[in-house]
Amino acid sequence: MSTTTPSTLRVTPDPADPRLTRALRGVDQAGAPVDLRVVEERPLTIYLNAREIVTVMTIGDHPEWLALGFLVNQGMVRAGDRVTGIDHDAEVDAVIVRTAVETDHEARLARATRTSGCAVGTVFGDMMEGLEGLTLPSTALKVSDLQRLSAAINRTPSLYLEAGAIHGTCLCRGPDPLAYFEDVGRHNAVDKLAGWMRTTGTQPDDKTLYTTGRLTSEMVIKCALMGIPALVSRSGFTAWGVEIARQVGLTVIGRMKGARFVCLSGEERVIWDGE
Amino acid sequence: MSTTTPSTLRVTPDPADPRLTRALRGVDQAGAPVDLRVVEERPLTIYLNAREIVTVMTIGDHPEWLALGFLVNQGMVRAGDRVTGIDHDAEVDAVIVRTAVETDHEARLARATRTSGCAVGTVFGDMMEGLEGLTLPSTALKVSDLQRLSAAINRTPSLYLEAGAIHGTCLCRGPDPLAYFEDVGRHNAVDKLAGWMRTTGTQPDDKTLYTTGRLTSEMVIKCALMGIPALVSRSGFTAWGVEIARQVGLTVIGRMKGARFVCLSGEERVIWDGE
Repeated sequence: MSTTTPSTLRVTPDPADPRLTRALRGVDQAGAPVDLRVVEERPLTIYLNAREIVTVMTIGDHPEWLALGFLVNQGMVRAGDRVTGIDHDAEVDAVIVRTAVETDHEARLARATRTSGCAVGTVFGDMMEGLEGLTLPSTALKVSDLQRLSAAINRTPSLYLEAGAIHGTCLCRGPDPLAYFEDVGRHNAVDKLAGWMRTTGTQPDDKTLYTTGRLTSEMVIKCALMGIPALVSRSGFTAWGVEIARQVGLTVIGRMKGARFVCLSGEERVIWDGE
Repeated sequence: MSTTTPSTLRVTPDPADPRLTRALRGVDQAGAPVDLRVVEERPLTIYLNAREIVTVMTIGDHPEWLALGFLVNQGMVRAGDRVTGIDHDAEVDAVIVRTAVETDHEARLARATRTSGCAVGTVFGDMMEGLEGLTLPSTALKVSDLQRLSAAINRTPSLYLEAGAIHGTCLCRGPDPLAYFEDVGRHNAVDKLAGWMRTTGTQPDDKTLYTTGRLTSEMVIKCALMGIPALVSRSGFTAWGVEIARQVGLTVIGRMKGARFVCLSGEERVIWDGE
């Protein structure tokens, strides 16, 4: 398949980055040698000021955005908190995010929720916290834009096309992909995007979040808490994910394959101008 | 595709169980109504004796095996610990696992590692803990068996075939599938299997673990710690997963599609008698 990078993409995956994939030799079902590229997976420990928060497994690109976005999406760095510095120490695989005022997240470490697709997932505090009273902007979504986005994202050079076994997410506005991140963890990719949005001051109101991952409850909640009114995936749904999306007014499109998809939430905001 | 359940399967998914999927109505890309079945996703809180350990998101079947297997795979219930009871309270979505002697897992709650594919993953203690000095049995693996297994598993009635957006795992011996579990979280499925193995006293030495999930570091580590000498997936690899597998002598087969696959670890234990 011929690949091409959309001109509107301000951040794109870099499949040519030698730090992100490794050439490995194996054998096929007949015992014949096979050479393939495999994505890297390395630990990154995230600190908030003096406190060690978590160690994530990541391919390793954009560590500052991943760390900031993780803390923002976990509610540990709030909208009002002033970030005074983000220091990445490649020697020890760590990122320190510094805020002007120490944040009060200790209480959030009390409970653990293991979330779908996880080895063991922890959501600090109640997964549903912050959803009460949340109202997303009622942004219209054109089918023609979705179909253009799906084609454009699938043709963009990526680690997925290069090595597979990786998840991707792309922030889009109308028919235009704006920022595309990949990682071994689908939530890492979304967290990198959240860190990029916070750093660049990108507003969520008129955006669409595309993910290769399944539309589980925590992906729906994360998208809603980010304030993005539309979530699109090539993968499928879970019933609770759909239920939450309908509650908070998030438009959810799944099973996006070529020009085809299924919309299970927010169809009243969709404009049917597609193929 | 015509489905059939292998006679050797002692535990199989139950796509007919009305608690595991929900019928939802949506629309397609043309705005035409679409009715589809979507997998459920609900919280299950796991207690070890008096202590709340974690809340996992699960489809909801086999809660006792999931709870026990989670605790076993986290090293919170060790080989020597006598389990005196497992009580599931469907009213409050909780399972209490009781042991004769209180286990000392508090220290393991100190550090958190978010693992690939996670919202936020926590591995209690060092992910690599327990791998030092681990030697897996050098069990031979026949290509013909793998090809039969792949076909048999893909044709077994499952929630994946019914609703999609779900992961599966199957414990196998030679050409025979023995126990097949599914869940929204790929690790939940493996944990249910671990709980079943512990309950039934099933030994790992001559088994193969089949998973639909990617062969990331934590999946490789989990399989190795379970003592299963071979790990097979229809999905791809990460470099660190392969590195760990080679270190501990775990045979790893990925990208299994029909009769085709790639072996990146343990090829010296594979018998090339396939198609």
